[in-house]
Amino acid sequence: MAEDQEEIEGLIALMARLPGLGPRSARRAVLQLIKKRGQLLVPLADSMRRVAETARECLRCGNVGTADICSICLSEKRGTGELCVVEDVADLWAMERAGVFKGRYHVLGGVLSALDAVGPEELRIPRLAERVREEAITEVILALNATVDGQTTAHYIADQLEDMGVKITSLAQGVPVGGELDYLDDGTIGAALRARKTF
Amino acid sequence: MAEDQEEIEGLIALMARLPGLGPRSARRAVLQLIKKRGQLLVPLADSMRRVAETARECLRCGNVGTADICSICLSEKRGTGELCVVEDVADLWAMERAGVFKGRYHVLGGVLSALDAVGPEELRIPRLAERVREEAITEVILALNATVDGQTTAHYIADQLEDMGVKITSLAQGVPVGGELDYLDDGTIGAALRARKTF
Ligand SMILES: [Zn+2]
Ligand SMILES: [Zn+2]
Repeated sequence: MAEDQEEIEGLIALMARLPGLGPRSARRAVLQLIKKRGQLLVPLADSMRRVAETARECLRCGNVGTADICSICLSEKRGTGELCVVEDVADLWAMERAGVFKGRYHVLGGVLSALDAVGPEELRIPRLAERVREEAITEVILALNATVDGQTTAHYIADQLEDMGVKITSLAQGVPVGGELDYLDDGTIGAALRARKTF
Repeated sequence: MAEDQEEIEGLIALMARLPGLGPRSARRAVLQLIKKRGQLLVPLADSMRRVAETARECLRCGNVGTADICSICLSEKRGTGELCVVEDVADLWAMERAGVFKGRYHVLGGVLSALDAVGPEELRIPRLAERVREEAITEVILALNATVDGQTTAHYIADQLEDMGVKITSLAQGVPVGGELDYLDDGTIGAALRARKTF
């Protein structure tokens, strides 16, 4: 590519690293951005810059926002004694979109995986028992993906919390085998939550 | 969405406006960007800012780059007397990736469309005859998409150039009916160019 297109080629290469965009769609996206410089390219660059400066993980639950403690953790109304354990932030957001869960969250940041050498210390698992104690949690809802690693992780957590006198449930009906939470429709998530069963 | 997530929601909404990204993939892309703040989010914001400041259309051919006149137009070697007419910049880039055309380009910026009220004045069509004269063009290759509007535009241009003593050809063999140039593989584009026929 010629020198006068290096800058644009660089942007295409960066865009192509985003999940869901290949080289062709990255090229089309960049041409679109250049066409809509004022309405899209400049606002996007500014928004990215602001997010880069302000985005952080909630120190308590692992949700992503711009405050040290997220609004869900801070809300009095969400102190129902129910704590929903999810694999990642996308799953938390999917639960919130479904709008049926009124308690708080705990984002693990992944699942246990022998293959990828992910142990409990790599995840937000040690903090979970502390939160159950400190926040007077009465029910832990394991909303992990219905994958082998997800279910291994659920069993591990259930073992860890066994002697703490907390009720442990899991999403049941409605989660397809091998399915991932973030790809379910809101109704399915709602049904699975309402029909949760003791783990 | 809570106040502490407004900034992030704003970025997701902007990302979802890119071609090829829906709301779900925009959310996943933004979470990925936040995870890879230093390697991806900051470089992307900087690159977008630079492209917003420097990208421009070549005054001669309509290619996108960072110079007033693009390197293809400036290159002595590309002064073969052949001028390839394409619908948009993505098609020019597709031709360049195929690497078989050694002349220069003329990007129309769209095709004639009665439905969308796109006439010759909305496109870079008036400039085409001027370039044929000024640049001693001997052959105009109409590399327009094999769609109804693309072919209507090709015929319109052929009529305009009829009395100028220039050879007019079109990509022929290899372009599937209804197909768009940017989705073809390099080999197909090369074959179509080599087998071009008088229009
Ligand atoms: Zn939180
Ligand atoms: Zn040019």
